[in-house]
Amino acid sequence: MAGGRAGFAWRPPWLNGYNGASARQDLVAGLVVVMMLVPQSLAYALLAGLPAEAGLYASILPIVAYAAFGSSRTLAVGPVAVVSLMTASAIAPLAATGSPEAVGLALLLALLSGGLLILCGVLRLGVIAHLLSHPVVNGFMAGSAVLIILGQLFPLFGVQGHGHTGLSLAIALPSALAGAHPATALMGAVAVLTLALARRYLGPLLRRLGLKPGAAEMGARLAPMCVVLVAIALTALMNLDQDAGVAVVGSLPSSLPSLGLPTLELGILQALLLPAGAIALVGFIESVSVAQSLAMREREQIDPNRELLGLGAANVMASLAGGLPVTGGLSRSVVNYAAGARSPLAGVVSALALVVILLNVSELFERLPKCVLAASIIVPMTSLLNPADLRRMWSYSPPDGLAYLATALGVLTLGVEAGIALGVALSLLTVVWQASQPHIAVIGRVPGTEQYRNVKRAEVTTWPHILALRVDENLFFGNISTLEHAVQEALAAQPTAGHVILVLSSVSHIDATALERLLEMNHRLAARQIKLHLAEVKGPVLDQLQRTSLPAELGGRVFRFTHEAFSALLD
Amino acid sequence: MAGGRAGFAWRPPWLNGYNGASARQDLVAGLVVVMMLVPQSLAYALLAGLPAEAGLYASILPIVAYAAFGSSRTLAVGPVAVVSLMTASAIAPLAATGSPEAVGLALLLALLSGGLLILCGVLRLGVIAHLLSHPVVNGFMAGSAVLIILGQLFPLFGVQGHGHTGLSLAIALPSALAGAHPATALMGAVAVLTLALARRYLGPLLRRLGLKPGAAEMGARLAPMCVVLVAIALTALMNLDQDAGVAVVGSLPSSLPSLGLPTLELGILQALLLPAGAIALVGFIESVSVAQSLAMREREQIDPNRELLGLGAANVMASLAGGLPVTGGLSRSVVNYAAGARSPLAGVVSALALVVILLNVSELFERLPKCVLAASIIVPMTSLLNPADLRRMWSYSPPDGLAYLATALGVLTLGVEAGIALGVALSLLTVVWQASQPHIAVIGRVPGTEQYRNVKRAEVTTWPHILALRVDENLFFGNISTLEHAVQEALAAQPTAGHVILVLSSVSHIDATALERLLEMNHRLAARQIKLHLAEVKGPVLDQLQRTSLPAELGGRVFRFTHEAFSALLD
Repeated sequence: MAGGRAGFAWRPPWLNGYNGASARQDLVAGLVVVMMLVPQSLAYALLAGLPAEAGLYASILPIVAYAAFGSSRTLAVGPVAVVSLMTASAIAPLAATGSPEAVGLALLLALLSGGLLILCGVLRLGVIAHLLSHPVVNGFMAGSAVLIILGQLFPLFGVQGHGHTGLSLAIALPSALAGAHPATALMGAVAVLTLALARRYLGPLLRRLGLKPGAAEMGARLAPMCVVLVAIALTALMNLDQDAGVAVVGSLPSSLPSLGLPTLELGILQALLLPAGAIALVGFIESVSVAQSLAMREREQIDPNRELLGLGAANVMASLAGGLPVTGGLSRSVVNYAAGARSPLAGVVSALALVVILLNVSELFERLPKCVLAASIIVPMTSLLNPADLRRMWSYSPPDGLAYLATALGVLTLGVEAGIALGVALSLLTVVWQASQPHIAVIGRVPGTEQYRNVKRAEVTTWPHILALRVDENLFFGNISTLEHAVQEALAAQPTAGHVILVLSSVSHIDATALERLLEMNHRLAARQIKLHLAEVKGPVLDQLQRTSLPAELGGRVFRFTHEAFSALLD
Repeated sequence: MAGGRAGFAWRPPWLNGYNGASARQDLVAGLVVVMMLVPQSLAYALLAGLPAEAGLYASILPIVAYAAFGSSRTLAVGPVAVVSLMTASAIAPLAATGSPEAVGLALLLALLSGGLLILCGVLRLGVIAHLLSHPVVNGFMAGSAVLIILGQLFPLFGVQGHGHTGLSLAIALPSALAGAHPATALMGAVAVLTLALARRYLGPLLRRLGLKPGAAEMGARLAPMCVVLVAIALTALMNLDQDAGVAVVGSLPSSLPSLGLPTLELGILQALLLPAGAIALVGFIESVSVAQSLAMREREQIDPNRELLGLGAANVMASLAGGLPVTGGLSRSVVNYAAGARSPLAGVVSALALVVILLNVSELFERLPKCVLAASIIVPMTSLLNPADLRRMWSYSPPDGLAYLATALGVLTLGVEAGIALGVALSLLTVVWQASQPHIAVIGRVPGTEQYRNVKRAEVTTWPHILALRVDENLFFGNISTLEHAVQEALAAQPTAGHVILVLSSVSHIDATALERLLEMNHRLAARQIKLHLAEVKGPVLDQLQRTSLPAELGGRVFRFTHEAFSALLD
């Protein structure tokens, strides 16, 4: 936070107290993370509809760029599942999967979302991290997970997939699976089973074998790399790719990416702007929440504005280096933290290690079956499907549950961006809808105190000539008629009332519509010889009302406290 | 109201006490109103891009339908300017002005909006009258008035108009006016001048000549009919239409409309559904506000649900009888009221009188110059342009001023429906935006009382180990981080605090996001040996919180009153 408060200092905060021991810890963490990074990079590039090497390229320079500008010590930046899914859905209408055009579009997407993130960072708009409610984020993640799993079932069983909504994938699935490629399907199924079992039992097993909890967690996280290596060995030994027709990753370049700007075309830029904005927003929110939960364990704070700059720089770098949109990923960051990373230099170590792999042993991964990569995507996605989340949310507040469900179903049926848009619209409408259903209580005095409470909830004293109503919401065009009806009904129930007190303790705003209608109410009451008083008007509201004709026209008075009003009217 | 409460009684409330005197009053009022109705009907039909007779047809049976179902005694239903403008803008992309296709589309629009109104009436959705804020309605009216005036300048000067947005009309205007038709322009200008002067001075003049105020107002309102008759006489005497080429209304049928359903086509129905919804909403809101302001003078109340049925029936009838969408209009209703109308039977008299005119003297209006009709539209529209409205709104509340301005400019540049949509979106976002900027105050005790107030606004007592913050807004995902920062900063300013009390007297809702973050805040404070307490939690919120883990996890306690909390912590 200190760095953030003092502007964008070039000296990163983690340099304080950095020493040889820290450097050794970073070295180990970086080497551990690269073992996860290789299969994830390849898998997420394929998920995004790109050649596998794009994933490797996206995992080198972006990490370095984040290390230079970001604020988290342990966040591991690179391709992640949800952002790759969004990339795929943005590219799909414009170019064929894996084509050079698709690669160019992915670079543009990364450039645009990186540019947007940097712009937001420079404008210090870190607050956009709070633009989406938890139900919308969780619903989005759940819907995306289902969409990703559905999509990956096709390569898992060695068949071609069509359709980009959950619905069209689900419809295409049965007939596609009927034509599954036996050898691929077998290998895929075994990989899923192995990874699922490892995910569940490997950590506890390693701990029972004597490893420390942190090391056991790390070991379990390396299972995908082991499965990948075993699959490569099997494929090579049994010549599965050539003899049995198992689809493999295929030729990978053994060279570093050449840096270059993507081609810019106005029409395409326009088409990609909205998806780029969605990718920037979702990527930022996912990354900040990962970084925040890690920082909390160390009693540190991350600075959302520096995060915007760090992620923006990482995406611009991904674009220049032939990659795809990137962000901070949960699983790699957790391993990085568990492996003892002390600074973003751990990420630099990962990047360097990846360069060594790319230059020396990249041909090793050319015979990696695609179905195993699909398995390595599917298994972690299952953890995002948590029905208890939805149940808990619904029981606490049905509108929140509805926002979760609508976002998830929206992602599945309408697509990722439309799903988010639906969720955001719904959560904003909920705010307005709740404000338009104000709780209005007739109140009376709690005997022996200066406190006033709802006559229905407490034993209170009331007087026949005074009617006091408390409005528990800002007054605006959407709820002023509810107040009018409440006053009318309360007066019908208490026809002896000569004074109506509106207690505005919960009112922070009165809009122009509500003000006009309050004036009308005042005149209608005056015609019936009833005086309208206001009480507990907040300072800013009172300042605002002083600029209108209300104080002059009001039949009654404006009191500071409800108690003052009752005392005055009881004299 | 009694009728509304008791369901849709077939015996209309105005029948109570209806007698011979009432019938005579209705007869007079109906005859006075028909003198306004003829020019207005013709003018608004042309404004809607339809043959003039559609306006006459829309002024006969719809009035009778409203009389049967509506709840206002004096509302005069028929074609009105804004609804005709909306009809024109809905039809324009689909058919040429004045073509048989345009007539068919107008019938469909009336049928659809009538159907929607009846549906809303049956569902008792009268509350939709409050869906639009006053700034949005006023801004919409002002923008529409400018749009109508711009559009009518073309026929006023005898030239063809192109374009359907204010912008395109304004751009086309100068070159069009350069080719103005001299005789038409002269007659149009004289008509505008005469009507404007009559509007301003005729009423007072008649009063000075000894008429009663009501009669003077009525007389002034008949000026358009006089101007129309003079213009017809001039045209006939000087043969202006044939010799000078002044455009006139042209042949009118001298027969009653034949009833029939419009042709229904799915594609066209879909294209018209949104405009029909907008017409229904705007027409309903305009009509209800006219009816309400008239009813208030008589201490009566109108029932929004019956109004929905009445207007819906009127529109369905307009569709069956060859008309166009209709609603309750301000000027005719005011004259109807001033002329002493006692019941909707006055409208039936108008309808019958119109039938007589149509069957006997309709050829009289065939030589009525269109420029005079344009003048009769332009002059009343100027009263909707009221810059003081905007100034007053802006000075009271800038967001309301902005909604007014955005709606008006939206109508002018984007079109009528997009303009409303923009205004509604903006006024909803304002509600959310204000909720996301909560006022949070550190509070202390007003000495000698049990009251607690903002330390910045009142002389209050505070204690170093207690920090109490009052949140003046519902807690939700959009403002919970503001609360987090406020607590953090207040603690930094008062590091001795061991207790934080959140005073929730203004909080009626806590959403799932805010709840999770409150739990996190509780744990962070607990780690610093600070207890988090809640006070003044409202009943419904408390009920909701009881269903969560918060009561169990909270480091501090939940107090009923702030005073209780301070008393307990000061012991």
